[in-house]
Amino acid sequence: DPNLKVFTLNSNPDLAEQIVEHIGVKMGKCSVTRFSDGEIQINIEESIRGCDVYVIQSTSAPVNEHIMELLIMVDALKRASAKTINVVLPYYGYARQDRKARSREPITAKLVANLLEVAGVTRVITLDLHATQIQGFFDIPVDQLLGVPILAKHFREKNLEDIVIVSPDHGGVTRARKLADRLKAPIAIIDKRRPRPNVAEVMNIVGNIEGKTAIIIDDIIDTAGTITLASNALVENGAKEVYACCTHPVLSGPAIERIQNSKIKELVITNTIPLPEEKMIDKITQLSVAPLLGEAIIRVHEQLSVSKLFDE
Amino acid sequence: DPNLKVFTLNSNPDLAEQIVEHIGVKMGKCSVTRFSDGEIQINIEESIRGCDVYVIQSTSAPVNEHIMELLIMVDALKRASAKTINVVLPYYGYARQDRKARSREPITAKLVANLLEVAGVTRVITLDLHATQIQGFFDIPVDQLLGVPILAKHFREKNLEDIVIVSPDHGGVTRARKLADRLKAPIAIIDKRRPRPNVAEVMNIVGNIEGKTAIIIDDIIDTAGTITLASNALVENGAKEVYACCTHPVLSGPAIERIQNSKIKELVITNTIPLPEEKMIDKITQLSVAPLLGEAIIRVHEQLSVSKLFDE
Ligand SMILES: Nc1ncnc2c1ncn2[C@@H]1O[C@H](COP(=O)(O)O)[C@@H](O)[C@H]1O
Ligand SMILES: Nc1ncnc2c1ncn2[C@@H]1O[C@H](COP(=O)(O)O)[C@@H](O)[C@H]1O
Repeated sequence: DPNLKVFTLNSNPDLAEQIVEHIGVKMGKCSVTRFSDGEIQINIEESIRGCDVYVIQSTSAPVNEHIMELLIMVDALKRASAKTINVVLPYYGYARQDRKARSREPITAKLVANLLEVAGVTRVITLDLHATQIQGFFDIPVDQLLGVPILAKHFREKNLEDIVIVSPDHGGVTRARKLADRLKAPIAIIDKRRPRPNVAEVMNIVGNIEGKTAIIIDDIIDTAGTITLASNALVENGAKEVYACCTHPVLSGPAIERIQNSKIKELVITNTIPLPEEKMIDKITQLSVAPLLGEAIIRVHEQLSVSKLFDE
Repeated sequence: DPNLKVFTLNSNPDLAEQIVEHIGVKMGKCSVTRFSDGEIQINIEESIRGCDVYVIQSTSAPVNEHIMELLIMVDALKRASAKTINVVLPYYGYARQDRKARSREPITAKLVANLLEVAGVTRVITLDLHATQIQGFFDIPVDQLLGVPILAKHFREKNLEDIVIVSPDHGGVTRARKLADRLKAPIAIIDKRRPRPNVAEVMNIVGNIEGKTAIIIDDIIDTAGTITLASNALVENGAKEVYACCTHPVLSGPAIERIQNSKIKELVITNTIPLPEEKMIDKITQLSVAPLLGEAIIRVHEQLSVSKLFDE
């Protein structure tokens, strides 16, 4: 369909290439560079008049650069008479700033939604929002895809025995339940609590993990503090071995070192955020969300539902 | 007035300190830092409920970081019940992307206006917009102050004789006229033209400069190509000596080297953009816009006009 155009910006060009390959279209031509003073210069190099345009950009680090690239691209597309401007955000940056935890804090996840709308976005396609409520920050359609089916497929193919799916905190139980359903396994929850102020947290495990193969699941792994502490607690409490998985590998600061030195046997991630060479350690397995996002673009373009996509 | 609060972000803290000193208020308490993954974390550390808040931030390099800091701060202020949110933008980044020069270009100066408004800004105070039309990109009040009176005062105190004010291009003639009026001097214009495609530009000078002291004026000096070529052309055509001045010292890429090696005797700039240590060369004189911006804040807060400010 000549009216379907896909463009990539600078956050995740490899994933974008895989997506256009899956769809069977050519990558849209545009240049996204910098002026001498660091301002972003965008030139769209083919007509997109009347087209349905899909722009692929994770708002991962450097998050502010990637957000501004996206907003400026959307502004250019709008002025060039795109029919629809669909933003594919494999990773939605600032998603953890989704509420006022203290007084006088911003709600940056909502601000970003407002910025995208005012720039001219007509639809958002994303994966595993940190909080599902972020869909409601938008007044345009938001399709949220799930990483769980991709992660489940990987673990199913490993034929692990006697497994238990572990949520590293209370917030992640629904996600753990989804993986557990697909792997026909029970769940357990790490129940952190601080007995008294200024006393170290106690890692209490709710559920039976003894002698079992534990698979910890989270949406985002950032500094990897939570997941590595959880993996150690699981082994100390009698788990046979520990796997971990997540959709969004932020992996900032001490993350890689912590994972390397932890009891985690294998960390399974997706490529919503690219993994730079220096972070590719043997323990990490990266799965591609390109078929999922490619299929989602095809279905959205054909005005079909994407909600059950890739869940066999 | 306890209802007047001034905050600074990270682009120009020295200027902001001078401004609060001029006004005679304490700097508002807030912390603007980064999470491990580079996302901006803002905490406003005093109540601003019902207050008129002024936030000082130039959207100079790194422009995208500085824009996002500003937007997130405004979001936090809005949610903390500020009565008015007045943004002081000594330098307005992306101002040169104010029109579609080619097909399928963004108009980023307008996008930035939209972003500021959707975040919750209620008034903008700025200095020498690259194009005055940018005021019309906003649907909120925009006060535009002029750098010319500050530059004029500096040159008046030098008691230079037989001067001519030079605009480096056709776009800057109005600005040159304003400086010339204040210094009671005639003007000249550098009239660049390309005789044939792929032939070097010819610098033709319209107006009499022979034996005179030329003062070139521009709003922004970025890579300094225009201004250094102009200064050489002026000397070659018989100017006695050449000064240059501008409001916004972007000074990116080869700017400092070019200025150092040029025929320019003194370059006079303001501090709308801070000059890092390594760019402070003897030829450059930096004047402060703090009294001007401080006075503007006082007058806006007292609901007085700022249009003739600092023009004696
Ligand atoms: N990029 C970030 N890195 C670490 N913490 C964050 C980040 N963004 C927001 N937060 C904080 O994380 C908390 C929300 O995390 P969660 O409880 O996992 O939803 C809030 O208190 C935020 O202030
Ligand atoms: N940051 C920048 N650095 C250099 N050129 C720019 C920048 N932003 C926009 N421009 C270009 O500068 C031209 C406008 O400059 P002017 O003619 O001085 O108003 C447009 O063609 C823009 O594409």
